[in-house]
Amino acid sequence: MTIVRIRKEKKYALVVDIGGTNTVVGLGNLKGKILKKNKIKTLPESGPDFLFLKIINVLKGFIKKFKLKKEDILFSSIGSPGPLDLKQGSIIHSVNLSGWEKFNLREPLEAAFKIPAFIENDANLAGLGESWLGAGKGKKMVLAFTLGTGVGGAVIIHDRIFNGSKGYGAELGHITIYPDGPLCTCSNHGCLEAYISAGGILRRVFENKKALSKSILNKFSIETLTPFKVSLAAQKGDKFAINILKETGRYLGIALASYTNIFNPDVIILGGGIMKDNKIVQNHAKKELRKRAFKIMSKDVKIALTKLGDNAPLIGAIKNGLNLYYGNL
Amino acid sequence: MTIVRIRKEKKYALVVDIGGTNTVVGLGNLKGKILKKNKIKTLPESGPDFLFLKIINVLKGFIKKFKLKKEDILFSSIGSPGPLDLKQGSIIHSVNLSGWEKFNLREPLEAAFKIPAFIENDANLAGLGESWLGAGKGKKMVLAFTLGTGVGGAVIIHDRIFNGSKGYGAELGHITIYPDGPLCTCSNHGCLEAYISAGGILRRVFENKKALSKSILNKFSIETLTPFKVSLAAQKGDKFAINILKETGRYLGIALASYTNIFNPDVIILGGGIMKDNKIVQNHAKKELRKRAFKIMSKDVKIALTKLGDNAPLIGAIKNGLNLYYGNL
Repeated sequence: MTIVRIRKEKKYALVVDIGGTNTVVGLGNLKGKILKKNKIKTLPESGPDFLFLKIINVLKGFIKKFKLKKEDILFSSIGSPGPLDLKQGSIIHSVNLSGWEKFNLREPLEAAFKIPAFIENDANLAGLGESWLGAGKGKKMVLAFTLGTGVGGAVIIHDRIFNGSKGYGAELGHITIYPDGPLCTCSNHGCLEAYISAGGILRRVFENKKALSKSILNKFSIETLTPFKVSLAAQKGDKFAINILKETGRYLGIALASYTNIFNPDVIILGGGIMKDNKIVQNHAKKELRKRAFKIMSKDVKIALTKLGDNAPLIGAIKNGLNLYYGNL
Repeated sequence: MTIVRIRKEKKYALVVDIGGTNTVVGLGNLKGKILKKNKIKTLPESGPDFLFLKIINVLKGFIKKFKLKKEDILFSSIGSPGPLDLKQGSIIHSVNLSGWEKFNLREPLEAAFKIPAFIENDANLAGLGESWLGAGKGKKMVLAFTLGTGVGGAVIIHDRIFNGSKGYGAELGHITIYPDGPLCTCSNHGCLEAYISAGGILRRVFENKKALSKSILNKFSIETLTPFKVSLAAQKGDKFAINILKETGRYLGIALASYTNIFNPDVIILGGGIMKDNKIVQNHAKKELRKRAFKIMSKDVKIALTKLGDNAPLIGAIKNGLNLYYGNL
């Protein structure tokens, strides 16, 4: 086998992170440094053709600005809300991008730049980015969770995404924690996501009318309240808000204990608005995890917060591209 | 790289499956065929030195009988109740083999035969055997469960054992299914194992005194009843026994739904006495799984029974040895 050595800081990747509202388009080098990025509106109702025209335009601008030659750019790598059909290169189902299901996400970039294009679920890319250069750097077995509209999860083994036989797995928000619990968006009952997603947290706030009436959260409606505001109220000492966060940590910890017994991870990385500037969720998740998981595994697992912020999916896209590009050599 | 080609039917492995009561010693070829095996008593209280003297004697007898030359035997491969310290080569903790914790399981065989010895958890080897040549043959992503004294589990990816960062993972019986459920042997509450292990099944039988009084199971004590007898009573139409098995299937299915969302497996293999000659557990597990897991994953996952019987751990030991022996080339 010939060992291919390249100077990774002199070679580049085109990266794209498609979201329901915004899409981030970036240029990075193969060491994982994002040199330039732009945020554009996704406008789901205008369709994917229109979005990709704009993406290609932005990328061409980057290439011009950095005076890159064709051979300096190895691949493009795209993150998208999933689940994705990795074989077809298309979205199978996404609430925010409905109607995009037949569209091949790889083709426009392959046609425009004549380089391979790779796609992956955005939560998996964010986890991979954190594992490669963020809170999981140097670790072998990394799990990542993002508490947001849903509960995103990623399983990263040796800086590679694990997503099961057909790439639909690693749905870590959809572990059942109470089999008779509330209905989840996935139509199961009692998933972790049904308790600790934004919707799950708000449901728990407005369910407990009596306690809510004594809380500063009482001034919000279900439309105006957000998990971040719950977190702010807790920081101000609001007892009800503190309890909601403690419970959130406990639910998360129940799941993390199972995941620890299953994956024997080195580090579990937590992200999302509610984790920021507030240790309550993290501490209670840790406590519950240590109470429940096998000691031999729980004693070594580190619970960490995300480090790369919004760049995580772009950095993960570079690493995923590298894995797949060189995986085929 | 030089490609090493060997005629696998002409090369051999020494395999050992240590159990709490019996130890099986075998000789197999590298295609996974067990040519000869002997069962000996483990006698835990006599210690590991004594057991390994007997193991080595049996293996020397096999080598003589088959007129094997030193260079025909590539490695020895051992399965043991776990968790194991794969680095030290020793048992970290086993209820049935307590006091064996300092003993290096690899050394006696390495010293006697001057070939590498490999060790692995017995449940993982059984799963690997089934994945390689049994009910999971040709499948990429395989999960295996054995319902017995405990609930053993294995995660097999491309015919390789996945067991997490330090090899303690894949404890699939210790996923929490009811966080406030009964105490488990692992000291967590509400693990799958607490419901569907032999002890969990018997607990559920004797807990429901009223229904039990009308059942043919009523003639047994907690000392004389076994899950297999519950299964036999169900076959005879005993309603209470049937309900116990339906519930067993439901508990298992709750966990299998989570595992399907996590691993996106091609096949889930079920084994153990209670699964034999009786479809109730299997059918109810399937039903619950299909109700709860993501359709895109549940529609393709196959639920199968073990095919290799008692040979599974020995065959898995051959494959694990092959993976590790050639993994280092």
